[in-house]
Amino acid sequence: MDEQNIRLMIPGPVEIHPKVYQAMNRLLYGHRTNEFREILKESIEMLKEICRTQNDMFIFSGSGTSAMDSAIANLVSKGDEVLNIMGGKFAERWIEITQTYGGKSIPVNVEWGKAVNLDEMIAVLENNPNIKFITFTHNETSTGVLQPGEEIAKIAQEYDKLLIVDAITSVGGDYCETDKWGFDVLVTGSQKCLGIPPGLGMIAVNQRAWEVIENRSDIPSYYLNLKKHRNSFKKYDTPYTPALPLFYAAHKAFQMILEEGYENRVKRHRLCAQAMREGMKTIGFDLFADQQYASNTVTAVKYLDGLDDAEFRKTMLKHKVLIAGGQGKVKGKIFRAAHMNLCTDREVLLMLEMTELVLKELGFDIELGAGVSAAEKVFL
Amino acid sequence: MDEQNIRLMIPGPVEIHPKVYQAMNRLLYGHRTNEFREILKESIEMLKEICRTQNDMFIFSGSGTSAMDSAIANLVSKGDEVLNIMGGKFAERWIEITQTYGGKSIPVNVEWGKAVNLDEMIAVLENNPNIKFITFTHNETSTGVLQPGEEIAKIAQEYDKLLIVDAITSVGGDYCETDKWGFDVLVTGSQKCLGIPPGLGMIAVNQRAWEVIENRSDIPSYYLNLKKHRNSFKKYDTPYTPALPLFYAAHKAFQMILEEGYENRVKRHRLCAQAMREGMKTIGFDLFADQQYASNTVTAVKYLDGLDDAEFRKTMLKHKVLIAGGQGKVKGKIFRAAHMNLCTDREVLLMLEMTELVLKELGFDIELGAGVSAAEKVFL
Repeated sequence: MDEQNIRLMIPGPVEIHPKVYQAMNRLLYGHRTNEFREILKESIEMLKEICRTQNDMFIFSGSGTSAMDSAIANLVSKGDEVLNIMGGKFAERWIEITQTYGGKSIPVNVEWGKAVNLDEMIAVLENNPNIKFITFTHNETSTGVLQPGEEIAKIAQEYDKLLIVDAITSVGGDYCETDKWGFDVLVTGSQKCLGIPPGLGMIAVNQRAWEVIENRSDIPSYYLNLKKHRNSFKKYDTPYTPALPLFYAAHKAFQMILEEGYENRVKRHRLCAQAMREGMKTIGFDLFADQQYASNTVTAVKYLDGLDDAEFRKTMLKHKVLIAGGQGKVKGKIFRAAHMNLCTDREVLLMLEMTELVLKELGFDIELGAGVSAAEKVFL
Repeated sequence: MDEQNIRLMIPGPVEIHPKVYQAMNRLLYGHRTNEFREILKESIEMLKEICRTQNDMFIFSGSGTSAMDSAIANLVSKGDEVLNIMGGKFAERWIEITQTYGGKSIPVNVEWGKAVNLDEMIAVLENNPNIKFITFTHNETSTGVLQPGEEIAKIAQEYDKLLIVDAITSVGGDYCETDKWGFDVLVTGSQKCLGIPPGLGMIAVNQRAWEVIENRSDIPSYYLNLKKHRNSFKKYDTPYTPALPLFYAAHKAFQMILEEGYENRVKRHRLCAQAMREGMKTIGFDLFADQQYASNTVTAVKYLDGLDDAEFRKTMLKHKVLIAGGQGKVKGKIFRAAHMNLCTDREVLLMLEMTELVLKELGFDIELGAGVSAAEKVFL
């Protein structure tokens, strides 16, 4: 297999624009220099614009999970009650991290493929007045669900809870109004809709969150300690050596994202998502996610009866298209195609064409071209 | 200033071989694939060979400090006594991390520029029988001192203490016999003598250390949790998305290091170091480090009377050579030139030539060519 000539339709890492690659390859230079400080300063300014926030932001040399870890390690003290909105593999990660730091997790269960029931969330808040924090995963990659971020934030504010949001697969691809909606802590990562190679985690922290952090006597984190990052950033430094090639790449990717513009970029992702969904449904698939809350950056598709996960994905790969299977409890039951970062009509149509071809190859009786045409109509 | 045409003589990031750059740029591919698992498996095998260990090793997407953080977070419980051997900025970092996790730091003070006094270390161990851990920085980049790793390890074993070693700037450039000497936990990083861009931290963990980790009820770390990394590596996976370009680069860099061979590589670094020291002394400088314990990967040089730190380094940079100043208490008093990774006679002579030229430019009465000749004699 020639893995250097494969189209990535997986939900991260995504394909990278050649200009971003080029930026990643500028020769390394010292990071304790004004040249790097300028890059870092500009990058943070651009990132804040992309995340629609005026809050402090920091970039960690680490994956998106490093930023999730940082959020909980810096904020949640032993015994603190945390409402974790469930519904997918990444939502579950919030429970694991909460428990790592001695937080008491109070889950609101959500059926995979569905959005949270806001009345249930309110009931849990009513029954547990000591809850201090709420976590949720804005765009749940494992199920293809976009949680209602604005509504969740409204409830968090009404009940005066601090809201910690994993927006790793929404930022840069869908609406994510950090300040307007009121996300107190926002976490994101490089290798999804921001179009940077994996290895950077980002976090936004507002004043309410800083107050919690400042009132803690000891924070069990050194590398991901937010106070250390804030302190260094006063001089536009990182506290530890940054992963320079990825920072160079981020700087260029952020420029390109801002050139395209927030609304244009969201519109493009939403159009691709709609076309992907129409195409898949027309081919004959059922979609996994509740369509009212379908993700605009990744589509989860239920397998047809008799269509084997391993065989389907292997055959797609033979045709040089890499898609993702299901994770956790939906392993073998769904596949996932992402439409992130560079994705346009070209990639969506390619995915649909290839799905049709592979289904035919595997002996399924489908109408060739139907799914593609349905998607084309969306684009037109 | 054209920072893309500067020779890096700083102690990290170092210049990267074009082949490593090329490897870094292979197109991204999914990390949950057999292709990436193979890269990871081979990389860990090569890294173990380079670190002279059969112990478990893991690579974090994070800077070298992430691996230091991991060592303490996973091993040191609240109230545990930790002997921290001091003597430089990076040694001090061990105290900060120890205290972050509630460890009780018991420092053995070491004058900057000197190696630890082993009798003093023994006295501290005798007086504090509850000490469980010893930390030290094998090669102290801030002072140019190579601590006597083998002797320290011998004492740690005699007193049955668990030894945690920062070998970030020795591994790949100087002798570091993890298993033979008995380093229980070894930490290193990508952007020094391993010749990889910054952004990867590595850790080796032996059986004694695992026993401590396994006996702990809760470990305040998620992203850097060693059990999670061990668990994923059983299937040659990383627990979270790895910084793929840096992993690709590491795989190639490790191959090149093993091609050169351990002894050859150490010999080359030691020869460069000797030539650098001879050259600097002949120019008229005093070296900062006790010469019996001089680092073989970075040389710290005391400024001549009347030679201003900012002016010297700025003038060197005008000639397109980037060197490092002093850190912490020796800021303004020393400069540092590294000889790591690709460094050969070419770089050492260049550094000395340029130092001579700049001194003349700044009005110092030195003999042109003397330092360079002294170094050339070492190489011949």
